[in-house]
Amino acid sequence: MEFVGSHILSVDQFDRKGIEHIFAIADSMQPYADRIRITRILQGAILSNMFFEPSTRTRVSFGCAFNLLGGEVRETSEIKASSLTKGESLYDSARVLSGYSDIIVMRHPESGSVAEFASASRVPVINAGDGPNEHPSQALLDLYTIKKELNEKSRSVDGLRIAMVGDLKYGRAVHSLLKLLGLFKDITIHLVSPPDLKTPDDIVQQLKQLGHAVHATDSMEEGIHHVDIVYTTRTQEERFPSQTEADRYKGLFRLNQAIYTEFCEPNTVIMHPLPRDSRSQAQELDDDLNTNPNLAIFRQTDNGVLIRMALFSLVLDITDQIHSHASPVTWFTARRTPNY
Amino acid sequence: MEFVGSHILSVDQFDRKGIEHIFAIADSMQPYADRIRITRILQGAILSNMFFEPSTRTRVSFGCAFNLLGGEVRETSEIKASSLTKGESLYDSARVLSGYSDIIVMRHPESGSVAEFASASRVPVINAGDGPNEHPSQALLDLYTIKKELNEKSRSVDGLRIAMVGDLKYGRAVHSLLKLLGLFKDITIHLVSPPDLKTPDDIVQQLKQLGHAVHATDSMEEGIHHVDIVYTTRTQEERFPSQTEADRYKGLFRLNQAIYTEFCEPNTVIMHPLPRDSRSQAQELDDDLNTNPNLAIFRQTDNGVLIRMALFSLVLDITDQIHSHASPVTWFTARRTPNY
Amino acid sequence: MEFVGSHILSVDQFDRKGIEHIFAIADSMQPYADRIRITRILQGAILSNMFFEPSTRTRVSFGCAFNLLGGEVRETSEIKASSLTKGESLYDSARVLSGYSDIIVMRHPESGSVAEFASASRVPVINAGDGPNEHPSQALLDLYTIKKELNEKSRSVDGLRIAMVGDLKYGRAVHSLLKLLGLFKDITIHLVSPPDLKTPDDIVQQLKQLGHAVHATDSMEEGIHHVDIVYTTRTQEERFPSQTEADRYKGLFRLNQAIYTEFCEPNTVIMHPLPRDSRSQAQELDDDLNTNPNLAIFRQTDNGVLIRMALFSLVLDITDQIHSHASPVTWFTARRTPNY
Repeated sequence: MEFVGSHILSVDQFDRKGIEHIFAIADSMQPYADRIRITRILQGAILSNMFFEPSTRTRVSFGCAFNLLGGEVRETSEIKASSLTKGESLYDSARVLSGYSDIIVMRHPESGSVAEFASASRVPVINAGDGPNEHPSQALLDLYTIKKELNEKSRSVDGLRIAMVGDLKYGRAVHSLLKLLGLFKDITIHLVSPPDLKTPDDIVQQLKQLGHAVHATDSMEEGIHHVDIVYTTRTQEERFPSQTEADRYKGLFRLNQAIYTEFCEPNTVIMHPLPRDSRSQAQELDDDLNTNPNLAIFRQTDNGVLIRMALFSLVLDITDQIHSHASPVTWFTARRTPNY
Repeated sequence: MEFVGSHILSVDQFDRKGIEHIFAIADSMQPYADRIRITRILQGAILSNMFFEPSTRTRVSFGCAFNLLGGEVRETSEIKASSLTKGESLYDSARVLSGYSDIIVMRHPESGSVAEFASASRVPVINAGDGPNEHPSQALLDLYTIKKELNEKSRSVDGLRIAMVGDLKYGRAVHSLLKLLGLFKDITIHLVSPPDLKTPDDIVQQLKQLGHAVHATDSMEEGIHHVDIVYTTRTQEERFPSQTEADRYKGLFRLNQAIYTEFCEPNTVIMHPLPRDSRSQAQELDDDLNTNPNLAIFRQTDNGVLIRMALFSLVLDITDQIHSHASPVTWFTARRTPNY
Repeated sequence: MEFVGSHILSVDQFDRKGIEHIFAIADSMQPYADRIRITRILQGAILSNMFFEPSTRTRVSFGCAFNLLGGEVRETSEIKASSLTKGESLYDSARVLSGYSDIIVMRHPESGSVAEFASASRVPVINAGDGPNEHPSQALLDLYTIKKELNEKSRSVDGLRIAMVGDLKYGRAVHSLLKLLGLFKDITIHLVSPPDLKTPDDIVQQLKQLGHAVHATDSMEEGIHHVDIVYTTRTQEERFPSQTEADRYKGLFRLNQAIYTEFCEPNTVIMHPLPRDSRSQAQELDDDLNTNPNLAIFRQTDNGVLIRMALFSLVLDITDQIHSHASPVTWFTARRTPNY
């Protein structure tokens, strides 16, 4: 696929070769994210970081990625602060904002909104989440994390065994990751969810047609038994058809250290798209896993910066120039201390 | 007029020579806005971009203009986020904030607030809109757009024929633009509005005293017949004295392609201060004009960046230095592609 | 004390030698804050300026301080815009955000929250206010202002006579400043407050044990009689046990020019942590003091930038490198005009 000047809107845009190219560029960003070197290649370039729905993590991640390449960031972080509330169309917003900046990152609560915006934009647009629909950089950082975690064990994504746990019906992160995994070979997927929150059938059928092994279950213990990765998600009570149904599954999809020790193979990697709900009534990843070295959830967000730097670099066609605009970091950086 | 170190608060500050100077500097900013070159002349300078009323477009436009000159931007975008809500006076806010930055851009819902703030500020202040009162950079970008559109046809602002359409009673953009037009020669102005939303009489009288031709009408078809520019504005229903009155004029001031074709001279330029209300019940510029090459509304917002760069450059006295701090752009820029 | 890589969470961290080191570095920042020179030493570094409670002044002050050192700033300014509202723990927020930036400044409404966040952060954290608890850079800028104001009179902090006026029970600024003053010698402190809003006893006892003279009174006139500094604070009516009590003290702790002239020694310096409540019903510093040259409240906020630059420089270990990355300022700067 061609990246230069392209919009990044959906995981459907990517083929395996394109993904591997993104990952190779992401790897080359590590010295900048680690503050071993800085680069000023995008000095003078402007990102419009348009968040019409709150998301501190994703917004700051994109902003930092652009800053780390030397560019400037202009932002909006609330729909109320926008002329969209005065009846302005996405078409008009796109025509106007694309006159200001070199590239636009956009999050918006409505499905399809970012693609509509992109079709009117005069500069490349990266979808940072359009409601329940797509959030391609999240899927890429998830897959990139899987690749890196497996590489540590001298494995590759081909042959991966993964369990997806929780709300598999509504979670866009799960759907997008499953689509990307479909591009690889011999994936074994355990879909662990309450019956009412099962993975949509078209996604399952597509994976099977591509020759992957897909197993659905409502038993977490069974699903996480023989896998390399457990990918858990939030399960919101209001997604269930009734409170009775919600109560029935309460706590059954919550992973903690005891369950991990009893049911998982040693060194099974734990992932989550975040934010993790740490309130006592939540049903996902227990805090007692925080000291488990296989908890990869913060390596995921670290990898997000690398993936976003890679996307900016590819779309703005600077991958060959980054390193010639580099210089060493001279300030204290915690990243070189043992406890980082 | 003297720009260096001055506040930019009102269109009343400008004479024709000053305006032409601003426009000449704005012209020289084009290579930077087009990403042919970057300049770092304001590296180390800080703009405080203080928006105590939401306006994504204007806020981002000012911020990008400052970034394009190499400066940094600190922002506020909501009155709730401000100590103004804790009873702090504009005097105190101005004394404090002017200790942080090199220049301040301020929007505030109350008429006169920005001038009051500026009188206590220790650094130059640019008014980005103080309620119904003034928004001088909008008036300048409107006039600059008129100049450029006419120059394309080997014409100048002198001798312009323009129709202003919609709510001419409350629209500050219209009032300010009319004041600036008054500084030029032989302007013919058609004021098209419902009787209850007519242009204030003092503005009309001033234009007549300056020798311009002013015609008022409530018929859009009549007003837009023989003009170079149609400048339309939002007409908010709540501005009418009664719903009966609002209903009576519903749709009568809405320009669309059919009306344009039937009543306007060929190549009549269409302008609007934006945001345009694209909801079906709105009464201004129809979306079917989007493919009309004479729709200049996005050239207006593009020009806004040039005007704001010019104002920053003049106030901070860097117009002679910009080009010696320039270097070529090496990243992909959509601005050099045919579809931009 | 060791600054490099440390969190700055509480005034309890500082000893006198450490404070004097911070102040010496702050002094050396003056040419940059005055726009005589710029430095680019932190070019490529990123501050995450996380304000989970509104505070335009403090947020912009920290942001400008980082920009003046050449770094970039990513921000959040509202708790609603945060995944904290989705049940994310401070632990998770800290792990994630510290993967993005080089240093974090954080304000949060809950006491102890910033320390909890810092304990999970992988990069240094500066507390910019955790509810009623701590705001160490405010205490430092207050003390730094006292030092500079006294130095103007060839005096030092040792031997200082100061009156603290207003709500001394809840004001964190007062408590922190008193703790820092305790590190110096022969301080005479007049604590002026309504009986229900007295300074907590442990703070008073500690000062006495350190050999300082502490006098408590509910008469402002008596307290401000023989001092070098009057430090006033907001007194919020809702802090009183009853409206009767609030009414009883209404206006009794409001300093104005007449009271100043009658009761204060010549050139007594007036300070306030800001924001000052300028509404007519407020009970603190009258606007008629604005032309009094001894009103130091805006010198305090100016000094805040120097203190924050010093803290960033010390924590990021760049104090020796700043000046070798410096160059002259070439734009107009109001800071060199007589009226600044």
